[in-house]
Amino acid sequence: MKNGKVTLLSAGPGALDLLTLRAARVLGEADVLLVDDLANPEIATLAPQARVIAVGKRGGCRSTPQAFIERLMCRFARAGAHVVRVKGGDALMFGRAGEEISALRRAGVPVEIVNGVSAAFAAAAGLGMSLTHRDHCAGVTFVTAHRQDGSAPNWAALAATGTTLAIYMGVNRVEALAGTLLAHLDANTPAAAVQWAGTPQERRLVTSLGRLAADVRAGGFASPAILLVGGALSEAAPVALDIANGGTSAHVAPDVIARAA
Amino acid sequence: MKNGKVTLLSAGPGALDLLTLRAARVLGEADVLLVDDLANPEIATLAPQARVIAVGKRGGCRSTPQAFIERLMCRFARAGAHVVRVKGGDALMFGRAGEEISALRRAGVPVEIVNGVSAAFAAAAGLGMSLTHRDHCAGVTFVTAHRQDGSAPNWAALAATGTTLAIYMGVNRVEALAGTLLAHLDANTPAAAVQWAGTPQERRLVTSLGRLAADVRAGGFASPAILLVGGALSEAAPVALDIANGGTSAHVAPDVIARAA
Repeated sequence: MKNGKVTLLSAGPGALDLLTLRAARVLGEADVLLVDDLANPEIATLAPQARVIAVGKRGGCRSTPQAFIERLMCRFARAGAHVVRVKGGDALMFGRAGEEISALRRAGVPVEIVNGVSAAFAAAAGLGMSLTHRDHCAGVTFVTAHRQDGSAPNWAALAATGTTLAIYMGVNRVEALAGTLLAHLDANTPAAAVQWAGTPQERRLVTSLGRLAADVRAGGFASPAILLVGGALSEAAPVALDIANGGTSAHVAPDVIARAA
Repeated sequence: MKNGKVTLLSAGPGALDLLTLRAARVLGEADVLLVDDLANPEIATLAPQARVIAVGKRGGCRSTPQAFIERLMCRFARAGAHVVRVKGGDALMFGRAGEEISALRRAGVPVEIVNGVSAAFAAAAGLGMSLTHRDHCAGVTFVTAHRQDGSAPNWAALAATGTTLAIYMGVNRVEALAGTLLAHLDANTPAAAVQWAGTPQERRLVTSLGRLAADVRAGGFASPAILLVGGALSEAAPVALDIANGGTSAHVAPDVIARAA
């Protein structure tokens, strides 16, 4: 009997062709697929032999408890299956891979990891800009507004870094979030929101931090979406070119762009 | 005659099977390939029809000037070619994509972007850990120690964020860098270095911030390497488990692990 194992596999931002070649090969070898609801369900077409189990946890409602997912992975792997745990974006950024790796290690189950493209990279591609344009910043910070213990990240420090901020899971509390950032950053700071980044439904909005909350609500942006804040956003195309060229105005009308499929 | 264009294509961290399916398809359509020296040169095998031009700029020596690369892309695209500009990691994090996009826009040349896996994600996969383990942090910051104008990033603010720090282009100045961080973070803060992340030559070292510089030198780590600092590194396997279990000792002997090919 073959030995079981678990692969934590990055599904990328949505479009199936943004999977890596390695991910596609591993999916073809899977016996069991545990699929997150942030991953594109069509990914199952690449795992024709696998039993597919949906284990979504979005927004806390009707969720599969984390402990149950971990038990499920261990049980199938111990029975000799190659279990592929599919996670949206890159498995190693947000999404509780840390806890799953710990649980599998404690259980003595071998774990492999296959990387992928996280949503903020796809968002930047849609906006036609570098996350780390060196005229504007020394780097980029990926941060979640949704912390385990309900505490907030240190927004003052995050703002002071001068890095581009890519905020995951923040769109549902954008008013509070933008309000806090406005205590530390100028209202003219370029900002953007990208919903369903890297999928055919992708929608984008380029604005300023001062207008971000109002424009996100007016545009009907909701989860899953990435918020982006920082000088590098002034390079976003095409709307942000108006920020760069416009000069004095803090307000750039939101321009909701549906990506051509 | 067909219309020319430029694709900024992410080569990922090295192993060819960490390219996305989209990247592999686009390479097959390329007429001209401009390849960075941080990308795996074997990538040219996926672009059988393309004229391949190496345009490396590593470490500032024997470099192809940025302006020349930009002129080259525009010239081939205007002549009707599909130019694929191959960049290591993800094209939109470090690597001057921002300037290339600006130059192409000014020249009226259409630009497409294909995302990929940045080296720090591969480094985390090699270490078997999440970059954002929620017991330890609210996110991760990717920062370069090598700034355009010679200035340093705001290390005090970066340390205060509590995010995992993934430092690119820092290994050659690791003493100064670790020294600065030690003014803001405890010497026991878990830290790691990963050289050639995501390639068959990958080498890893898990230690503490207080020992990082000495261990990096003793282990002979050099560019290209990622430095990682933060509580999440205490989850790295297998060496960092000693940090978690060991308790009081700040010093974990460097364990240089060569990845099995």
